Formats: sequence, structure tokens, C-alpha cells
Amino acid sequence: MAVRSAEDTLSEIVRAGGAHVPQLLGLVEERLALLCAGHGPVLAEPAGDTIAAGGKRMRPLLVLLAAGSRTAREPELIAAAAAVELIHSATLVHDDVLDGAQLRRGVPTVWAQSGRELAVATGDLLFSRAFYELTAVGSLPAVRSLSRATSALAEGELLQRQDAWNPAVSVERYLLRCELKTARLFEAACEMGGQVARLRDEQIAALGGFGRALGLAFQLLDDVIDVAGPASLTGKHRGTDLLDGTVTLPLILARARDTGLAAIDLRTITTPEQAEAMCERIEGTGALRESRSRALQIVAEAKRGLDELPLEDAQRRALNLVADSVADRRA
Amino acid sequence: MAVRSAEDTLSEIVRAGGAHVPQLLGLVEERLALLCAGHGPVLAEPAGDTIAAGGKRMRPLLVLLAAGSRTAREPELIAAAAAVELIHSATLVHDDVLDGAQLRRGVPTVWAQSGRELAVATGDLLFSRAFYELTAVGSLPAVRSLSRATSALAEGELLQRQDAWNPAVSVERYLLRCELKTARLFEAACEMGGQVARLRDEQIAALGGFGRALGLAFQLLDDVIDVAGPASLTGKHRGTDLLDGTVTLPLILARARDTGLAAIDLRTITTPEQAEAMCERIEGTGALRESRSRALQIVAEAKRGLDELPLEDAQRRALNLVADSVADRRA
Repeated sequence: MAVRSAEDTLSEIVRAGGAHVPQLLGLVEERLALLCAGHGPVLAEPAGDTIAAGGKRMRPLLVLLAAGSRTAREPELIAAAAAVELIHSATLVHDDVLDGAQLRRGVPTVWAQSGRELAVATGDLLFSRAFYELTAVGSLPAVRSLSRATSALAEGELLQRQDAWNPAVSVERYLLRCELKTARLFEAACEMGGQVARLRDEQIAALGGFGRALGLAFQLLDDVIDVAGPASLTGKHRGTDLLDGTVTLPLILARARDTGLAAIDLRTITTPEQAEAMCERIEGTGALRESRSRALQIVAEAKRGLDELPLEDAQRRALNLVADSVADRRA
Repeated sequence: MAVRSAEDTLSEIVRAGGAHVPQLLGLVEERLALLCAGHGPVLAEPAGDTIAAGGKRMRPLLVLLAAGSRTAREPELIAAAAAVELIHSATLVHDDVLDGAQLRRGVPTVWAQSGRELAVATGDLLFSRAFYELTAVGSLPAVRSLSRATSALAEGELLQRQDAWNPAVSVERYLLRCELKTARLFEAACEMGGQVARLRDEQIAALGGFGRALGLAFQLLDDVIDVAGPASLTGKHRGTDLLDGTVTLPLILARARDTGLAAIDLRTITTPEQAEAMCERIEGTGALRESRSRALQIVAEAKRGLDELPLEDAQRRALNLVADSVADRRA
């Protein structure tokens, strides 16, 4: 199956009536570059490099789409979209320090390039500039949504550290971690778009619910892909989570199906080859298929939820396309 | 000279007409304890420990005093005071990771106790909860002030890392670092108090200027104390900044006065005994006296600025007392 890229999704959104979206995303990029630039004698190259290295810009896209075609408050909308991406980047920079990851999207991570000290400070800078950007033009509800999400992010990070190397973690606890680590920022992105567009509270909450479900599915599929590979598509070894001690749904489900697998001590898996073998074994139990199916079910429910919302036609189509792109992701 | 404690200053403030201040500070403490508690399955002991270990609570005090006796918006005021302290604590937790510091206020640092991973996440959590707390009840201008200050904090941290081990750094650049790292959060504390009390913009700006000057003097004296000791008073060796490669005003001034001292490579100072000897030598040049005198001059100017402000009498006396406590600090 061909991999659907962020560009493909964007083209589809344009064809579905979102002709203004690429231009807005371009403005978000410009704003991000500006926000990550150094000021006076303070150099901030690592911050700029992180942002420039890009990514799918999934969260800014959700901010823009949730606001619909009501772009009268464009500077506020751009700020909200940029702020969400800055927070996402900040967490990546800190995560890479925590995980000791050498590469991110094929380029050396901030800490690998500049040391742990600079990376922690760079993450803090991105984090602070996100709030500064948003407060400079934004509404208090949007700042509230973002800060609620960042609190959840940090809690999710703590939960992940506390649960590391513990394969007996429950599905519920795993799902809570995904919600805190990923879903809440997706939720905030959608809420913020709605808040900037001054939608009614119920509508903002419903859009937030859509984002939250999408984020949860996104994380589940991320965890599936880490086990499923293949490396040729993802650009990294299978089973990096196993080597980190991060216990995800495929492993949890596989342990319930294969008592021999359940008896394996995670700490004995220390090489990419051992991780690869473990991934094969997890796949053999059908746990990957079930994990993916759970994620797709969540996406389907999120899409059904959209049907009940009083959205513009083009907006509904665009949000559906983003949901499809999450469901289709393979890398 | 007897050391003046935070309690002494508070008693003086009460006698000067600020009878409501200790009770408000008590509410801030309660709020801080609540904000740092774990939520559900997410444990957050390190965050709570950090806050419980205390400190002078200088920044929350400034928030309360800047608001004067207009405490009608008490929940907002408590939130603002708690938020500033959470940010301060977050930076301490991250700083300790960056500096590899084992002890803080006599207790093991978060990272020394729980590892670097948990410490970075704990700092992020404190940081996020600060904004969440403030946005839950606060005004947008207050959130703006706080986020501007946290951006400055991170920039100051980056600047410090960039200038580490470079003794040729200029006085201007050193002062900029102090401003970014310390003065801006003091400024934000005063602004936020004024914002919560709905003071006029000029008055808020003037209070902010007072806080900024106070913060600058605070950092200068902090750096003086690191060189001056004595260990019996400060509870740590003299010259920890030298061992960290952090170049401060006493060293900068001493280098200009003693070419022999200027020729010393900082990286050759690796033991507490060598640091102690270097501190003696810096002191011998008169650089400590001059550094302290610069700080006291800044405090005096800040106090003169207060005279021109239309403040309540008790409020003016209280802010003067805080300024005196900064000038008097010896540890």
C-alpha cells in the first residue's frame, strides 16, 4: 500500500473546499520560524533546527480546520496553531533528552548535537514562547486549553517513567497514558480553533472530543507501527519502545495471549535483533492486528461524532480527511 | 551581623500595617501543596517535595504586596502568587539537572533522588500547572506577564550555557543574563499583583520596574554571596559558580583589576579548595565590595522609585521592607 503523506492529505483538503488552508499553514510556518529565532545575544539555533526539521504539522492543521472558514481573527488563529506546534516540539526535545535518542526525523536530536543542558533549556524556551505567543494575541479560554493540555503532557511523561519496564501494566492505565501524553494536545488544538472562531461552548467541546479521540488513535497506531515496522518504511528499528522499557498495547495484549511471551523479562531485551525477534513474536499472537483494530474503531467513532456536529460542509470533509490520514498512517 | 530571615521581614511587614499578608501567604502555601499533589494514578512526590522544601517565598510575597490591600479578588491573587512560585520551583528543578547539583536547601535535589528523567518531567509539570492555575482564575494580562518572564528565564538559561567558562564576558552581558534569569520573574510578580488589583497600566509598569530592579540586585547579591561565603552561613562551599564555569560580576571585576588573576584558566579550578583560594583572591581585589555596592545602589534606586508611586502607606512600607531584606541578605 502506498504511504499517504501530509501533502496528500492537504491536497485532498483543498479539493474538498479548504482552499485557504495551505496559505494559512504557510503563515504558521513563517510564524514558527520567527518565534524560534534567537533574540539579540541569545542564540537559539537548536530551537530553530527542531522546528525547521518539520513533521506532519498535524496539530496546527487541526487548529485551522476546527476554526472553519471563519478566519477573521487570522493572527489569533495563526498564533494558536503555532503555539500548539511549539508545545509539541518542546516535548519532543525533552523526550529525546529523557530517552537518550540520537536521531529525530533523520537529523541529530538537540541534546545529541548540543548536550543535555542546552536541550533542556531549549525545550523550556519553546514551551515558554508558545504561551507568550498565544497570550500576545489569544483569548484566555485558548490559553486555558493549552495549559490544561501541557499539564496532562507532563503527567503522561511522569506516568510513562513510573510504568517503565513494568509489563504487567493494565490496558486502562496504558490508555490513560496515551490520553495524557498525546490525546489531550490534539483535543486542545481542536478546542483552540473553536475558541478563536468564537464557536458555542458545546461545539467547542464536541470538536475537542473529536481531537481527543483522534489523538488517542494516533498514539495507539504509533505504538503499533513501532512493533510492526518495517524499518524500510519507518526509518528505524522495530521495537524501540521495547528497548526503552515503554510497555504498549501490542505487548500488553500479546502477554495475555502467550504465557511464554509473558514470562520474558523485558530487561533481557537489549539489542535491536532481540527487539526484532520479540516484535515477530508479538505479531504472531495477533496482538498487533487487535491493537490496530482498536485504533481504527476509535477513529470511526470520532468520524461518526462529526456527523452530528453543525459544521460547514468543507470543514466536515476536511476533518474527515484528517481522520482518514490518521487511520491510514503506516510510518 | 545577625541574618535577617524571611520570618523577620514578614513580622516587620505586619507591624507596618500588612496584617493580612501572613494569612494570604498561608493560603498560597495551601494552594501550592494542592497544586503539587499527584492526581489519580500519576505520582508527583518530587514536585511536592520541591515545594515543601520551601524557600523565602519572595516572589509570592511581591505578588501580594503589589496588589496592596485590594484583596477582593483573593482567589485570583492566590493563584498568581502560587503560579510565580511554581515557575520558580520548576526552574530550580531543571537548573539542578543542568548543574548536576546534589543538594538544594539541604535536601537532595529531585534528579539526585529520582533521576534526570523524572526531574525534567517534574519541572515540566510544575511549569504547566503554573499556567493552568493562573488561567483557571486569572486575567489574560497576568498570563502574558508570566509567559514573558518564563521566555526570558529560558533565554537566560541558554545565555548562561553559552557563556559558561568564558571569563572574558562583559559586564553588560552579565547584567543581561541576570535580568533574563532572575529580574524578569520578580518584575512579573509585581506586575501580576498590580494586574489582579486592576491598577492603572502606568502603575503596574512602575511596580514591575521596582520588581525588576529588586530581582537584578537579588541576583547580583546571590553571586556575591557565592564568592563571599562564609560556608558556615550559606551552607555550601565558596565558589560553586567558579566550579560550574558560571562567570559572575565579582570575577569579571577582579579580572580587570588583577592581570595575574585574569590569566588563570577557569577549567583548572576543579576542587572546593581551589575555588576557595580563588574566592580569596577575588575578594582581595576589592571586586566583592564593588559588586555588593552596585547591588545596593540598585536597591536604593528602586526604593526611591517607590516614593514617586501613588501607593497605600502600608503597601509602600512593606515593599520598602522587602527591598531592605534583599539588600541585607547574607546567605
